[in-house]
Formats: sequence, C-alpha cells, structure tokens
Amino acid sequence: MSEFRKDPVAGRWVIISVERGKSPADFKMRVPVRKGGFCAFCNGNEHTTPPEIIALRPDGSKPNSTGWTLRVVPNKFPVLHIRKQLNKTGKGIFEKMDGAGCQEIIIESPDHNLTLSTMPLKSVEDTLRVFSRRISELKKDGRLEYVLVFKNEGEIAGSTLEHTHSQLIALPVMPILIQEKIHNARQYYSNKEQCVFCDIIRQETADRTRLISENESYVSIAPFASRTPFETWILPKSHESSFAPDGKFSLLAQILQKTLRQIEKILNLPPYNMMIHTSPLKDELNKYYHWHIEIRPKLARNAGFEWGSGFYINPTSPEKAAKFMQDTGI
Amino acid sequence: MSEFRKDPVAGRWVIISVERGKSPADFKMRVPVRKGGFCAFCNGNEHTTPPEIIALRPDGSKPNSTGWTLRVVPNKFPVLHIRKQLNKTGKGIFEKMDGAGCQEIIIESPDHNLTLSTMPLKSVEDTLRVFSRRISELKKDGRLEYVLVFKNEGEIAGSTLEHTHSQLIALPVMPILIQEKIHNARQYYSNKEQCVFCDIIRQETADRTRLISENESYVSIAPFASRTPFETWILPKSHESSFAPDGKFSLLAQILQKTLRQIEKILNLPPYNMMIHTSPLKDELNKYYHWHIEIRPKLARNAGFEWGSGFYINPTSPEKAAKFMQDTGI
Repeated sequence: MSEFRKDPVAGRWVIISVERGKSPADFKMRVPVRKGGFCAFCNGNEHTTPPEIIALRPDGSKPNSTGWTLRVVPNKFPVLHIRKQLNKTGKGIFEKMDGAGCQEIIIESPDHNLTLSTMPLKSVEDTLRVFSRRISELKKDGRLEYVLVFKNEGEIAGSTLEHTHSQLIALPVMPILIQEKIHNARQYYSNKEQCVFCDIIRQETADRTRLISENESYVSIAPFASRTPFETWILPKSHESSFAPDGKFSLLAQILQKTLRQIEKILNLPPYNMMIHTSPLKDELNKYYHWHIEIRPKLARNAGFEWGSGFYINPTSPEKAAKFMQDTGI
Repeated sequence: MSEFRKDPVAGRWVIISVERGKSPADFKMRVPVRKGGFCAFCNGNEHTTPPEIIALRPDGSKPNSTGWTLRVVPNKFPVLHIRKQLNKTGKGIFEKMDGAGCQEIIIESPDHNLTLSTMPLKSVEDTLRVFSRRISELKKDGRLEYVLVFKNEGEIAGSTLEHTHSQLIALPVMPILIQEKIHNARQYYSNKEQCVFCDIIRQETADRTRLISENESYVSIAPFASRTPFETWILPKSHESSFAPDGKFSLLAQILQKTLRQIEKILNLPPYNMMIHTSPLKDELNKYYHWHIEIRPKLARNAGFEWGSGFYINPTSPEKAAKFMQDTGI
C-alpha cells in the first residue's frame, strides 16, 4: 500500500510506502572507517589550509597555529571568488553574471575521529554559534542574497575529506528550492495570516505520530512528505525566520546531537547530508518563513527519475521512521 | 573563472566553471562490464516477468514466449497500483491520496549485451515509437496527469538490473520540476507569444557554440545552464508540445543514438540518466511547451548542497562539452 503525500511548503508530491516499507536493516550504506593519514584539517597542520577566517582559541593561541577548538577557513579550491562587481550580462534569452561569492569550511574539531554526534556537546554548540556568526558577517556584503550552510558526512554523501567539517556558500542569487519554499510560505501567510511552519509544528506536536523529540525550544520531526527514509527536520518551536537563535544554542546543539545519534544508532553510521534553510539575507526577519535544519541519511542512489522530475519514492514512512528513532531510547 | 547562469525554463541558477573546468579524463565513473548470469529480461525467460502489456513480435510468436524484439511488462515490484478511486483526503495542513498509477518496464532488446547506443537503429526507433504508444494508451485513463519515461543506465545511475531497459511511471499528480517548467514556459508565452524552447533553439542554432548536432527534424544541444558535465537535450526543431512525433521516429532514433555514442566515446561508457519531458496528459497540445529529452551522464555523486538547494556547480562548461562531442567525429 502506498500513498501520495504533498509537502505543504515545497509543494512537492512524494510517494510513500505506508504498509510494507523498508526497515533500517534493509539499508547498507555506511560511512567508511576513517583511514587517517595526513589531514589538512587536523591539529598541527594549520599551515596547509588557507589562513583562517575565524577560530575559537580558548587558550589565546595565535591564528593559524595549534590550540584551536574550531576553525573557519576559505575553501582551498573555490569556484566562487569575492569580486567588486557582479557584471550581470545577457545574450538573447540567456542571463549570466560573474561567479562572485565565497565558500568557507567550518572545521568543527581538531580531532580527526570525532563527528557532530561524538564530539562534546559544547563543540556542537560552538559550531552552531559560528554558523550564525558567519551568516551575520556575510550579510554585510550587500551583493549577497543567501548563505547556505551544509554538511556532507561520508564519501557517499559527497564528502571528499574524512575529517568532519561543514561548509558554507554565500551566493548573489537565491537557490531555487529555497526560493520556492519562500514563495509558498509567503503565499500561505497571505491566505491564512499564519506561518506554514508554525502550523506544521502545531499539528505535529498535537498528533505526535511524526514527532521524534522536543525540548524547551526545538522539535525534531519526520516530515509528512519525507523524500527519503529517516529524513528529519529540526525547527524552533517559536516563530523565527532567520538562523540566529541567540542564547538557545545549547538547546539546539542538544536536539541536533540527539537526532544524529538516533540516526547513527538505527542505521549504523550512515552517510548523511545536513542543511540549514534560513531566510534570505535581505528579508531576514519576517512573519512567513521559519528556519529549519534538514537532515537526510544517504541510503540509496538517486534514480534518474528523481533528479529529472523532483518526484521521490520513499520506501519508509515517516511514522515508521519516527517510531524507530524514538525507540532508540536516546 | 566561474559564472552564474540562469536556465530560462527551469528558472534555476547554476555555477559553471568556464575557464579551467574539468575534462572527460577527470571523470572516472563507468558502467561495469556486464556479469551475465540469469536475467529475467533475456530471451527465453519471459515467464519470469509479469505478463507482457505489449511486445513487438515480427515473427508473429505468441505473447510471453520467445521471438520478440521489444517487450513492455509491468514493474514486478510496483509502489503504484491501478485503483478505482484516488481517495484524496487531508488532515489539517496535510493532503494525501492513494498510490494509484502504474509502472512499466520497456525491455528494448532481447540481447543482454546491447544498449541503446549499440543496438540496431531500428530497435531504437521501435523503442521511441513504443514510448509514444504507451503514453497515448495511458492517457485514456482520465485520472492520470503525467507519464514520465526515463532510463537509468548503469548501477551508479540507479539501475538495479544490467540488461538495458527503460521505465515509465504514470502519475495522478504532476512531478514538481515538470510543473515548474510548464508554469515558466506558460508565463514566457504569455509575455512574448513565443515558445521559450523555440526561442532557445533559434538562438542555439544561430550561435552554434552549444549546438552539438542536428538533422532535418531535431537538434541536440548542451544547455546554457547545464547542471552537470555533458548534460544534453534533444528537441524537435518545429514546435511540438507532446511526445508523439508521428513519422519522425527514425530521425529521432538517429540523433538519440548518435548523442549516446558521442557521450560513451568521450566518457568511456559512463552511467547516465535519460528522461523525456513531455506536456501534461490533460494539456497535451499547446503552444507554450515543447517536449525534449534530457540526458545526464552520472559522473559524480551529488553533494548535500545540491539536493538541498536545487543549486548546482558544474565543472565543465556546455561550450566545452559541445566541442568534445562534435570532435568525436560521430
């Protein structure tokens, strides 16, 4: 038995197997055991990355030396560069502009073997605070429209280095999937005078079949129209459009680490992708959009069908996924 | 040097490396050599698939026996089923409906070792004619909105069986990426009273830097805002909204096989995905949409960044890709 479900924000229909459906044991993708060897992100190798943008150095050590707990460095092989002008041009039907923007790497720990789920909670909290700080800093460049913060864990999820890290890309254009969410959320607001995400949270916390976990300020849910098994969203309970949860980083770190631990226990260290969907830089504080973190374990190869249509078939219902996650006891 | 380019139909920005950029030798993905062994799609094993829907049997042989040159069979493990009713329901903010629809497999050749690029041209022509025939047939079911025809070649591209085959999924909802193309194409038409694809073809055939090949009725182009290296589109030169090119299947087969041979020569048998984007079943003949085939070699893993934002970084410019394809001499 399967059903079509519509994502109320993205407007996308997905097919979900609600009766049979796959269980965690059916998925075999794993993050490979770390091989070690030389690593540019490890403690002591600071000179092998471009000079750091910021770093947390509780011991007051000098930039680009050892002693840090978190470093932000420019991507060594960026496709985007800071430029004076965007040089927007067109030819006939086509529009283009220079590749202006920037790409940064957030190295969350000097330890090669830690991950967001195994590092001290304080390091997760620091990571989230630094994400927020970099977004605020980049916002000052008026040419930028959006900052995407994301993490690929494991080679299959797109990571090219095994030392855990997140990435940030600052863009002079809006990514289309964010643009569509913004558009749909705005339309929902103009119809109902409610934030669509606030309505989702209200319904999910009442219904509880897809609610995975909650604390004072955040919820984690298996979204109604999950595209892939064990897709999980983390959202602030109160309305917040922009990712800058001042003062609540410790609660956010707690639910994020808990979620990752649940996923890693159930799926035995799967590769995963994580992404922060915040509001556009030029419309940061608004009533209709609500920032959230999306986490998707990478359990199967996408078929051509999915990239070419935006249409997903999900073999594990979010209700089943939520139950598995709750039952971990984490 | 990189630049942002906007796809005039999908509305999506991509980043393209225009100066350095990757060459074919930088990509290592390959379709593995066929292992053989028992195969349900091979000649002689007709009883191991569900009963055929249609087949081409030039020798007049009986259904579900040997003697065929092409077979269409139901997917053995479908997530969608033909149902009497869709049972559209909602709960609060969420909409859903039963998983009604169907999934079919088109086995293009009884020979385990042939592919669309190596089979006789006549078989490619038959395949395209059968795609069109199945779409027309399924259109009679008034509950269906769209038929997606696609092909995954190679395990990395999502294929689970090595015997070449295409797939079809008939849906009671529109896939979101098609819906958006339709929406944008309609908007373009209402502004300019021109089909956006006709305008693209006009510009590309005049400009010629991204035109790969053409014959009397079709063109193949490297799209201006290609998402991935060697992405290729095939379009009819004259305006046609719906995939039913009566009488021109041999010319279409010729350019399709040529394109695949070019890609396979340059990239040494890469996995690839192919998809037909035709008009919606309930608005088949219109002035604003123009059917096309999209082919994307699967050369790299998608990063989290791409699935989560719809934003692509393409390391090989379409101009460079088009030149490589022309230079094959195929």
